[in-house]
Amino acid sequence: MRKVFVIGIGAGNPDYVTVQAINALNEVDVFFIMDKGHEKEDLLRLRKEICERYVKNKSYRIVEAADPPRDRTPARYEPAVRAWHAQRAAIYEKLIGEEIGEDECGAFLVWGDPSLYDSTLRIVDQIVARAAVAFEYEVIPGISAIQALAAKHKIALNRIGRSVHITTGRKIAEGLPDNIDDVIVMLDADCSFKAIEAADIDIYWGAYVGTEDEILVAGNLRELRHDIERMRAEAKARKGWIMDTYLLRRRDA
Amino acid sequence: MRKVFVIGIGAGNPDYVTVQAINALNEVDVFFIMDKGHEKEDLLRLRKEICERYVKNKSYRIVEAADPPRDRTPARYEPAVRAWHAQRAAIYEKLIGEEIGEDECGAFLVWGDPSLYDSTLRIVDQIVARAAVAFEYEVIPGISAIQALAAKHKIALNRIGRSVHITTGRKIAEGLPDNIDDVIVMLDADCSFKAIEAADIDIYWGAYVGTEDEILVAGNLRELRHDIERMRAEAKARKGWIMDTYLLRRRDA
Repeated sequence: MRKVFVIGIGAGNPDYVTVQAINALNEVDVFFIMDKGHEKEDLLRLRKEICERYVKNKSYRIVEAADPPRDRTPARYEPAVRAWHAQRAAIYEKLIGEEIGEDECGAFLVWGDPSLYDSTLRIVDQIVARAAVAFEYEVIPGISAIQALAAKHKIALNRIGRSVHITTGRKIAEGLPDNIDDVIVMLDADCSFKAIEAADIDIYWGAYVGTEDEILVAGNLRELRHDIERMRAEAKARKGWIMDTYLLRRRDA
Repeated sequence: MRKVFVIGIGAGNPDYVTVQAINALNEVDVFFIMDKGHEKEDLLRLRKEICERYVKNKSYRIVEAADPPRDRTPARYEPAVRAWHAQRAAIYEKLIGEEIGEDECGAFLVWGDPSLYDSTLRIVDQIVARAAVAFEYEVIPGISAIQALAAKHKIALNRIGRSVHITTGRKIAEGLPDNIDDVIVMLDADCSFKAIEAADIDIYWGAYVGTEDEILVAGNLRELRHDIERMRAEAKARKGWIMDTYLLRRRDA
Protein backbone atom coordinates (compact mmCIF):
# COMPACT_ATOMS: atom_id res chain seq x y z
CA MET A 1 0.00 0.00 0.00
CA ARG A 2 1.20 3.49 -0.85
CA LYS A 3 1.83 5.67 2.19
CA VAL A 4 1.80 9.45 2.49
CA PHE A 5 3.26 11.39 5.40
CA VAL A 6 2.20 14.95 6.15
CA ILE A 7 5.15 16.08 8.24
CA GLY A 8 5.24 19.24 10.34
CA ILE A 9 8.86 20.42 10.16
CA GLY A 10 8.49 23.31 12.58
CA ALA A 11 8.57 27.04 12.08
CA GLY A 12 11.85 28.05 10.47
CA ASN A 13 14.59 26.62 12.68
CA PRO A 14 15.71 23.15 11.49
CA ASP A 15 16.31 22.32 15.18
CA TYR A 16 12.53 22.47 15.74
CA VAL A 17 12.22 19.12 13.90
CA THR A 18 11.10 16.29 16.22
CA VAL A 19 12.50 12.79 16.54
CA GLN A 20 9.18 11.49 15.22
CA ALA A 21 9.55 13.68 12.12
CA ILE A 22 13.15 12.50 11.61
CA ASN A 23 12.02 8.87 11.81
CA ALA A 24 9.30 9.60 9.24
CA LEU A 25 11.73 11.48 6.93
CA ASN A 26 13.88 8.35 6.92
CA GLU A 27 11.04 6.22 5.54
CA VAL A 28 10.32 8.49 2.60
CA ASP A 29 11.08 7.55 -1.01
CA VAL A 30 9.74 10.72 -2.60
CA PHE A 31 9.39 14.22 -1.17
CA PHE A 32 6.93 16.57 -2.82
CA ILE A 33 8.08 20.15 -2.63
CA MET A 34 5.31 22.46 -3.68
CA ASP A 35 6.18 25.90 -4.97
CA LYS A 36 3.38 28.21 -3.87
CA GLY A 37 4.60 30.98 -6.14
CA HIS A 38 4.98 33.53 -3.35
CA GLU A 39 7.52 31.27 -1.68
CA LYS A 40 11.02 32.27 -2.51
CA GLU A 41 14.07 30.17 -3.22
CA ASP A 42 15.03 30.45 0.50
CA LEU A 43 12.09 28.37 1.63
CA LEU A 44 12.51 25.67 -0.99
CA ARG A 45 16.19 25.45 -0.08
CA LEU A 46 15.39 25.17 3.65
CA ARG A 47 13.18 22.15 3.01
CA LYS A 48 15.84 20.46 0.93
CA GLU A 49 18.36 21.16 3.69
CA ILE A 50 16.10 19.45 6.22
CA CYS A 51 16.01 16.34 4.02
CA GLU A 52 19.79 16.42 3.56
CA ARG A 53 20.51 16.98 7.23
CA TYR A 54 18.20 14.35 8.68
CA VAL A 55 17.89 11.54 6.13
CA LYS A 56 20.65 8.96 6.67
CA ASN A 57 21.46 5.89 4.57
CA LYS A 58 18.41 6.12 2.35
CA SER A 59 18.10 7.35 -1.19
CA TYR A 60 15.13 9.55 -1.98
CA ARG A 61 13.74 11.56 -4.83
CA ILE A 62 12.53 15.15 -4.71
CA VAL A 63 9.63 16.10 -6.97
CA GLU A 64 8.98 19.81 -7.30
CA ALA A 65 5.57 20.91 -8.48
CA ALA A 66 3.89 24.28 -8.82
CA ASP A 67 0.77 25.07 -6.84
CA PRO A 68 -1.89 26.69 -9.04
CA PRO A 69 -2.05 30.48 -8.83
CA ARG A 70 -4.56 31.84 -6.34
CA ASP A 71 -6.86 34.83 -6.53
CA ARG A 72 -5.64 36.91 -3.56
CA THR A 73 -8.42 39.49 -3.73
CA PRO A 74 -11.60 37.47 -4.32
CA ALA A 75 -15.08 38.92 -3.73
CA ARG A 76 -15.80 36.02 -1.37
CA TYR A 77 -12.89 34.51 0.54
CA GLU A 78 -14.02 31.01 1.46
CA PRO A 79 -15.40 29.86 -1.94
CA ALA A 80 -12.23 31.16 -3.61
CA VAL A 81 -10.06 29.17 -1.21
CA ARG A 82 -12.23 26.07 -1.71
CA ALA A 83 -11.90 26.33 -5.49
CA TRP A 84 -8.14 26.71 -5.13
CA HIS A 85 -7.99 23.65 -2.84
CA ALA A 86 -9.92 21.59 -5.42
CA GLN A 87 -7.34 22.51 -8.09
CA ARG A 88 -4.54 21.58 -5.74
CA ALA A 89 -6.24 18.28 -4.82
CA ALA A 90 -6.17 17.31 -8.52
CA ILE A 91 -2.43 18.05 -8.69
CA TYR A 92 -1.61 16.28 -5.41
CA GLU A 93 -3.68 13.26 -6.43
CA LYS A 94 -1.71 12.97 -9.66
CA LEU A 95 1.57 13.22 -7.74
CA ILE A 96 0.53 10.51 -5.27
CA GLY A 97 -0.76 8.21 -8.02
CA GLU A 98 2.12 8.67 -10.47
CA GLU A 99 5.19 9.41 -8.39
CA ILE A 100 4.82 7.04 -5.42
CA GLY A 101 5.38 3.38 -6.32
CA GLU A 102 3.03 0.64 -5.09
CA ASP A 103 4.94 -0.04 -1.87
CA GLU A 104 6.62 3.31 -1.55
CA CYS A 105 6.22 6.23 0.78
CA GLY A 106 5.76 9.89 -0.14
CA ALA A 107 5.77 13.02 1.99
CA PHE A 108 4.58 16.59 2.06
CA LEU A 109 6.65 18.82 4.36
CA VAL A 110 4.61 21.49 6.10
CA TRP A 111 6.03 24.61 7.78
CA GLY A 112 5.05 24.78 11.43
CA ASP A 113 2.25 22.38 12.35
CA PRO A 114 -0.15 20.78 9.83
CA SER A 115 -3.11 21.44 12.18
CA LEU A 116 -2.88 25.24 12.16
CA TYR A 117 -3.69 27.38 9.12
CA ASP A 118 -2.29 24.92 6.64
CA SER A 119 -4.37 23.38 3.88
CA THR A 120 -2.50 20.12 3.24
CA LEU A 121 -4.81 17.98 5.43
CA ARG A 122 -7.93 19.39 3.81
CA ILE A 123 -6.48 18.60 0.38
CA VAL A 124 -5.54 15.05 1.40
CA ASP A 125 -9.09 14.60 2.75
CA GLN A 126 -10.47 15.56 -0.67
CA ILE A 127 -8.21 13.05 -2.39
CA VAL A 128 -9.31 10.33 0.03
CA ALA A 129 -12.95 11.23 -0.65
CA ARG A 130 -12.44 11.03 -4.44
CA ALA A 131 -11.02 7.51 -3.92
CA ALA A 132 -9.31 7.49 -7.34
CA VAL A 133 -5.97 6.50 -5.78
CA ALA A 134 -5.53 4.22 -2.75
CA PHE A 135 -3.08 5.16 -0.01
CA GLU A 136 -2.77 5.34 3.76
CA TYR A 137 -1.54 8.49 5.44
CA GLU A 138 -0.12 9.70 8.73
CA VAL A 139 0.23 13.17 10.23
CA ILE A 140 3.30 14.26 12.22
CA PRO A 141 2.87 17.38 14.40
CA GLY A 142 5.48 20.16 14.33
CA ILE A 143 6.41 23.24 16.36
CA SER A 144 4.14 26.06 15.17
CA ALA A 145 5.19 29.68 14.69
CA ILE A 146 2.99 30.55 17.68
CA GLN A 147 4.97 28.32 20.01
CA ALA A 148 8.28 29.58 18.67
CA LEU A 149 7.05 33.15 19.23
CA ALA A 150 5.99 32.44 22.83
CA ALA A 151 9.28 30.67 23.62
CA LYS A 152 11.36 33.55 22.30
CA HIS A 153 9.33 36.15 24.20
CA LYS A 154 9.42 33.79 27.23
CA ILE A 155 5.70 34.13 27.78
CA ALA A 156 2.75 31.83 28.32
CA LEU A 157 0.02 32.32 25.71
CA ASN A 158 -2.75 31.98 28.28
CA ARG A 159 -3.20 33.80 31.55
CA ILE A 160 -4.17 31.81 34.68
CA GLY A 161 -7.40 29.91 34.02
CA ARG A 162 -8.21 32.05 30.99
CA SER A 163 -8.77 31.40 27.28
CA VAL A 164 -6.64 32.05 24.22
CA HIS A 165 -8.02 32.89 20.82
CA ILE A 166 -6.23 32.14 17.54
CA THR A 167 -7.38 34.06 14.52
CA THR A 168 -6.35 35.58 11.19
CA GLY A 169 -5.36 39.06 10.07
CA ARG A 170 -8.58 39.18 8.06
CA LYS A 171 -10.64 38.62 11.22
CA ILE A 172 -8.69 40.88 13.57
CA ALA A 173 -9.16 43.79 11.18
CA GLU A 174 -12.75 43.78 12.49
CA GLY A 175 -11.39 44.47 15.99
CA LEU A 176 -10.61 42.40 19.10
CA PRO A 177 -13.51 40.04 19.84
CA ASP A 178 -15.63 40.89 22.89
CA ASN A 179 -14.52 39.35 26.17
CA ILE A 180 -11.33 38.05 24.58
CA ASP A 181 -8.14 39.46 26.03
CA ASP A 182 -5.47 37.22 24.51
CA VAL A 183 -5.45 36.84 20.74
CA ILE A 184 -2.85 35.19 18.53
CA VAL A 185 -2.93 36.45 14.96
CA MET A 186 -1.63 34.50 11.97
CA LEU A 187 -1.66 35.20 8.22
CA ASP A 188 -1.73 38.97 8.60
CA ALA A 189 -0.18 40.31 5.41
CA ASP A 190 -1.90 43.68 5.85
CA CYS A 191 -0.72 44.62 9.37
CA SER A 192 -4.32 44.66 10.59
CA PHE A 193 -3.07 45.52 14.08
CA LYS A 194 -2.36 49.06 12.94
CA ALA A 195 -6.10 49.86 12.91
CA ILE A 196 -6.55 48.99 16.59
CA GLU A 197 -6.76 52.19 18.62
CA ALA A 198 -7.19 50.83 22.16
CA ALA A 199 -4.48 52.06 24.54
CA ASP A 200 -4.49 49.05 26.87
CA ILE A 201 -3.19 46.37 24.48
CA ASP A 202 0.33 44.95 24.38
CA ILE A 203 1.76 43.23 21.31
CA TYR A 204 4.34 40.44 21.20
CA TRP A 205 5.44 40.33 17.59
CA GLY A 206 8.00 38.18 15.83
CA ALA A 207 9.21 37.57 12.29
CA TYR A 208 11.45 34.75 10.98
CA VAL A 209 11.35 33.42 14.55
CA GLY A 210 14.04 30.85 15.27
CA THR A 211 16.18 31.84 12.27
CA GLU A 212 19.20 34.14 11.97
CA ASP A 213 16.90 36.89 10.61
CA GLU A 214 14.65 36.79 13.69
CA ILE A 215 13.07 40.07 14.75
CA LEU A 216 11.22 40.32 18.09
CA VAL A 217 9.29 43.34 19.34
CA ALA A 218 7.17 43.58 22.49
CA GLY A 219 5.38 46.46 24.20
CA ASN A 220 2.37 48.72 23.96
CA LEU A 221 0.55 48.24 20.65
CA ARG A 222 -0.43 51.87 20.08
CA GLU A 223 3.16 53.02 20.63
CA LEU A 224 4.74 50.30 18.49
CA ARG A 225 2.27 49.57 15.70
CA HIS A 226 3.76 51.92 13.11
CA ASP A 227 7.32 50.85 13.94
CA ILE A 228 6.35 47.22 13.47
CA GLU A 229 4.62 48.00 10.18
CA ARG A 230 7.77 49.74 8.93
CA MET A 231 10.12 46.99 10.16
CA ARG A 232 7.92 44.37 8.52
CA ALA A 233 7.90 46.18 5.18
CA GLU A 234 11.67 46.69 5.27
CA ALA A 235 12.35 43.06 6.17
CA LYS A 236 10.02 41.79 3.47
CA ALA A 237 11.61 44.04 0.86
CA ARG A 238 15.07 42.85 1.91
CA LYS A 239 14.37 39.10 1.89
CA GLY A 240 11.52 38.90 -0.61
CA TRP A 241 9.22 37.08 1.85
CA ILE A 242 8.23 37.23 5.49
CA MET A 243 6.75 34.86 8.06
CA ASP A 244 5.45 36.67 11.12
CA THR A 245 2.87 36.23 13.84
CA TYR A 246 1.89 38.02 17.04
CA LEU A 247 -0.01 37.93 20.30
CA LEU A 248 -2.27 40.81 21.36
CA ARG A 249 -2.87 40.97 25.11
CA ARG A 250 -5.28 43.37 26.80
CA ARG A 251 -3.90 44.65 30.12
CA ASP A 252 -5.90 43.81 33.21
CA ALA A 253 -7.77 46.80 34.61
CA MET B 1 26.38 32.82 35.01
CA ARG B 2 23.88 30.16 36.05
CA LYS B 3 21.56 29.09 33.27
CA VAL B 4 18.08 27.59 33.48
CA PHE B 5 16.31 25.86 30.61
CA VAL B 6 12.55 25.44 30.56
CA ILE B 7 12.25 22.58 28.09
CA GLY B 8 9.01 21.46 26.45
CA ILE B 9 9.39 17.70 26.05
CA GLY B 10 6.14 17.15 24.16
CA ALA B 11 2.92 15.45 25.10
CA GLY B 12 3.61 11.88 26.14
CA ASN B 13 5.50 10.28 23.26
CA PRO B 14 9.31 10.56 23.74
CA ASP B 15 9.55 10.86 19.93
CA TYR B 16 7.86 14.27 20.17
CA VAL B 17 11.11 15.70 21.57
CA THR B 18 12.75 18.18 19.17
CA VAL B 19 16.39 18.42 18.12
CA GLN B 20 16.53 21.78 19.91
CA ALA B 21 15.34 20.12 23.13
CA ILE B 22 17.87 17.31 22.74
CA ASN B 23 20.67 19.86 22.31
CA ALA B 24 19.48 21.66 25.44
CA LEU B 25 19.20 18.40 27.43
CA ASN B 26 22.84 17.75 26.61
CA GLU B 27 23.93 21.02 28.23
CA VAL B 28 22.20 20.34 31.54
CA ASP B 29 24.07 19.57 34.77
CA VAL B 30 21.01 19.24 36.97
CA PHE B 31 17.44 18.29 36.11
CA PHE B 32 14.71 19.33 38.52
CA ILE B 33 11.88 16.83 38.55
CA MET B 34 8.94 18.23 40.44
CA ASP B 35 6.43 15.84 41.92
CA LYS B 36 3.05 17.55 41.70
CA GLY B 37 1.45 15.00 44.02
CA HIS B 38 -1.26 13.97 41.57
CA GLU B 39 1.43 12.83 39.16
CA LYS B 40 2.06 9.15 39.40
CA GLU B 41 5.27 7.17 39.21
CA ASP B 42 4.66 6.68 35.44
CA LEU B 43 5.16 10.35 34.67
CA LEU B 44 8.29 10.75 36.78
CA ARG B 45 9.72 7.63 35.11
CA LEU B 46 8.91 8.98 31.63
CA ARG B 47 10.91 12.14 32.32
CA LYS B 48 13.88 10.16 33.57
CA GLU B 49 13.67 7.98 30.47
CA ILE B 50 13.83 11.06 28.26
CA CYS B 51 17.04 12.13 30.02
CA GLU B 52 18.53 8.63 29.71
CA ARG B 53 17.56 8.25 26.09
CA TYR B 54 18.75 11.60 24.80
CA VAL B 55 21.67 12.72 26.97
CA LYS B 56 24.95 11.38 25.54
CA ASN B 57 28.44 11.66 27.01
CA LYS B 58 27.51 14.00 29.83
CA SER B 59 26.97 13.31 33.48
CA TYR B 60 24.02 14.97 35.14
CA ARG B 61 22.23 15.02 38.45
CA ILE B 62 18.51 14.63 39.03
CA VAL B 63 16.99 16.53 41.93
CA GLU B 64 13.47 15.56 42.86
CA ALA B 65 11.39 18.00 44.85
CA ALA B 66 7.78 18.06 45.94
CA ASP B 67 5.48 20.82 44.74
CA PRO B 68 3.43 22.25 47.62
CA PRO B 69 -0.09 20.83 47.95
CA ARG B 70 -2.79 22.85 46.20
CA ASP B 71 -6.33 23.62 47.25
CA ARG B 72 -8.33 22.05 44.39
CA THR B 73 -11.70 23.46 45.44
CA PRO B 74 -10.99 27.07 46.37
CA ALA B 75 -13.73 29.67 46.70
CA ARG B 76 -11.89 31.85 44.19
CA TYR B 77 -9.78 30.13 41.56
CA GLU B 78 -7.24 32.71 40.44
CA PRO B 79 -6.08 33.98 43.87
CA ALA B 80 -5.69 30.37 45.03
CA VAL B 81 -3.52 29.58 41.99
CA ARG B 82 -1.48 32.74 42.54
CA ALA B 83 -0.82 31.83 46.17
CA TRP B 84 0.22 28.34 45.10
CA HIS B 85 2.57 29.80 42.47
CA ALA B 86 4.20 32.03 45.10
CA GLN B 87 4.90 28.99 47.28
CA ARG B 88 6.35 27.17 44.31
CA ALA B 89 8.49 30.19 43.34
CA ALA B 90 10.13 30.04 46.79
CA ILE B 91 10.93 26.35 46.28
CA TYR B 92 12.20 26.77 42.71
CA GLU B 93 14.32 29.78 43.74
CA LYS B 94 16.00 27.69 46.42
CA LEU B 95 16.65 24.89 43.92
CA ILE B 96 18.19 27.27 41.39
CA GLY B 97 20.31 29.02 44.03
CA GLU B 98 21.50 25.93 45.88
CA GLU B 99 21.60 23.12 43.34
CA ILE B 100 23.01 24.83 40.23
CA GLY B 101 26.70 25.72 40.50
CA GLU B 102 28.02 29.15 39.41
CA ASP B 103 28.70 28.13 35.80
CA GLU B 104 26.28 25.27 35.63
CA CYS B 105 23.03 24.72 33.83
CA GLY B 106 19.73 23.49 35.29
CA ALA B 107 16.49 22.48 33.62
CA PHE B 108 12.80 22.07 34.27
CA LEU B 109 11.13 19.59 31.91
CA VAL B 110 7.59 20.54 30.97
CA TRP B 111 4.99 18.19 29.45
CA GLY B 112 3.73 19.48 26.14
CA ASP B 113 4.64 23.12 25.50
CA PRO B 114 5.65 25.62 28.22
CA SER B 115 3.46 28.31 26.62
CA LEU B 116 0.11 26.53 27.08
CA TYR B 117 -1.52 25.98 30.46
CA ASP B 118 1.74 25.40 32.27
CA SER B 119 2.87 27.55 35.19
CA THR B 120 6.65 27.14 35.00
CA LEU B 121 7.26 30.38 33.06
CA ARG B 122 5.10 32.39 35.45
CA ILE B 123 7.07 30.98 38.38
CA VAL B 124 10.42 31.73 36.73
CA ASP B 125 9.18 35.29 36.08
CA GLN B 126 8.47 35.68 39.79
CA ILE B 127 11.95 34.46 40.69
CA VAL B 128 13.49 36.89 38.20
CA ALA B 129 11.41 39.71 39.71
CA ARG B 130 12.55 38.84 43.27
CA ALA B 131 16.17 39.09 42.03
CA ALA B 132 17.52 37.09 44.98
CA VAL B 133 19.40 34.72 42.67
CA ALA B 134 21.01 35.66 39.34
CA PHE B 135 20.56 33.43 36.30
CA GLU B 136 19.76 33.57 32.62
CA TYR B 137 17.06 31.38 31.14
CA GLU B 138 15.86 30.04 27.83
CA VAL B 139 12.57 28.47 26.77
CA ILE B 140 12.38 25.53 24.35
CA PRO B 141 8.97 24.91 22.73
CA GLY B 142 7.48 21.40 22.63
CA ILE B 143 4.66 19.55 20.88
CA SER B 144 1.49 20.26 22.86
CA ALA B 145 -1.28 17.76 23.60
CA ILE B 146 -3.50 19.77 21.24
CA GLN B 147 -1.19 19.21 18.29
CA ALA B 148 -0.80 15.51 19.10
CA LEU B 149 -4.60 15.23 19.26
CA ALA B 150 -5.08 16.95 15.89
CA ALA B 151 -2.38 14.83 14.23
CA LYS B 152 -3.91 11.58 15.47
CA HIS B 153 -7.41 12.59 14.37
CA LYS B 154 -5.85 13.88 11.09
CA ILE B 155 -7.71 17.16 11.36
CA ALA B 156 -6.88 20.84 11.13
CA LEU B 157 -7.85 22.75 14.27
CA ASN B 158 -9.16 25.72 12.28
CA ARG B 159 -11.62 25.78 9.42
CA ILE B 160 -10.83 27.89 6.34
CA GLY B 161 -10.21 31.50 7.36
CA ARG B 162 -11.86 30.95 10.77
CA SER B 163 -10.74 31.24 14.38
CA VAL B 164 -9.88 28.66 17.02
CA HIS B 165 -10.49 29.12 20.71
CA ILE B 166 -8.47 27.37 23.43
CA THR B 167 -10.03 27.24 26.85
CA THR B 168 -10.34 25.24 30.07
CA GLY B 169 -12.87 22.76 31.41
CA ARG B 170 -13.81 25.35 34.01
CA LYS B 171 -14.74 27.84 31.28
CA ILE B 172 -16.50 25.46 28.91
CA ALA B 173 -18.82 24.37 31.72
CA GLU B 174 -20.45 27.76 31.16
CA GLY B 175 -21.25 26.71 27.57
CA LEU B 176 -19.71 27.29 24.13
CA PRO B 177 -18.85 30.97 23.68
CA ASP B 178 -21.06 32.93 21.27
CA ASN B 179 -19.90 32.99 17.66
CA ILE B 180 -17.18 30.46 18.39
CA ASP B 181 -17.51 27.19 16.52
CA ASP B 182 -14.16 25.51 17.17
CA VAL B 183 -13.05 25.16 20.79
CA ILE B 184 -10.11 23.21 22.19
CA VAL B 185 -10.56 22.30 25.84
CA MET B 186 -7.70 21.55 28.23
CA LEU B 187 -7.59 20.78 31.96
CA ASP B 188 -11.09 19.34 32.09
CA ALA B 189 -11.07 16.97 35.06
CA ASP B 190 -14.84 17.18 35.41
CA CYS B 191 -15.95 16.19 31.88
CA SER B 192 -17.62 19.57 31.43
CA PHE B 193 -18.60 18.55 27.89
CA LYS B 194 -21.30 16.30 29.32
CA ALA B 195 -23.45 19.31 30.21
CA ILE B 196 -23.57 20.56 26.61
CA GLU B 197 -26.97 19.69 25.09
CA ALA B 198 -26.60 21.11 21.56
CA ALA B 199 -27.16 18.48 18.87
CA ASP B 200 -24.90 20.03 16.22
CA ILE B 201 -21.52 19.66 17.93
CA ASP B 202 -18.85 17.07 17.15
CA ILE B 203 -16.14 16.09 19.61
CA TYR B 204 -12.59 14.91 18.84
CA TRP B 205 -11.35 13.50 22.11
CA GLY B 206 -8.07 11.85 23.03
CA ALA B 207 -6.34 10.54 26.14
CA TYR B 208 -2.68 9.52 26.59
CA VAL B 209 -2.23 10.63 22.97
CA GLY B 210 0.97 9.37 21.40
CA THR B 211 1.50 6.63 24.02
CA GLU B 212 0.65 2.94 23.98
CA ASP B 213 -2.43 3.69 26.14
CA GLU B 214 -3.83 6.16 23.59
CA ILE B 215 -7.63 6.36 23.30
CA LEU B 216 -9.23 8.34 20.47
CA VAL B 217 -12.95 9.00 20.02
CA ALA B 218 -14.60 11.22 17.43
CA GLY B 219 -18.23 11.87 16.51
CA ASN B 220 -21.37 13.61 17.62
CA LEU B 221 -20.98 15.00 21.14
CA ARG B 222 -24.51 14.32 22.35
CA GLU B 223 -24.28 10.68 21.25
CA LEU B 224 -20.79 10.10 22.66
CA ARG B 225 -20.53 12.25 25.77
CA HIS B 226 -21.55 9.60 28.28
CA ASP B 227 -19.39 6.94 26.63
CA ILE B 228 -16.39 9.25 26.82
CA GLU B 229 -17.11 10.07 30.45
CA ARG B 230 -17.21 6.34 31.26
CA MET B 231 -14.06 5.53 29.25
CA ARG B 232 -12.24 8.38 30.93
CA ALA B 233 -13.22 7.19 34.42
CA GLU B 234 -12.22 3.60 33.63
CA ALA B 235 -8.87 4.62 32.15
CA LYS B 236 -8.09 6.89 35.08
CA ALA B 237 -8.98 4.17 37.58
CA ARG B 238 -6.80 1.69 35.71
CA LYS B 239 -3.68 3.88 35.36
CA GLY B 240 -4.09 6.19 38.36
CA TRP B 241 -3.84 9.35 36.20
CA ILE B 242 -5.07 10.66 32.89
CA MET B 243 -4.01 13.32 30.39
CA ASP B 244 -6.76 14.14 27.91
CA THR B 245 -7.90 17.01 25.73
CA TYR B 246 -10.53 17.57 23.05
CA LEU B 247 -11.85 19.74 20.26
CA LEU B 248 -15.51 20.73 20.05
CA ARG B 249 -16.66 21.68 16.56
CA ARG B 250 -20.08 23.08 15.70
CA ARG B 251 -21.37 21.76 12.38
CA ASP B 252 -22.01 24.30 9.68
CA ALA B 253 -25.71 24.90 9.07
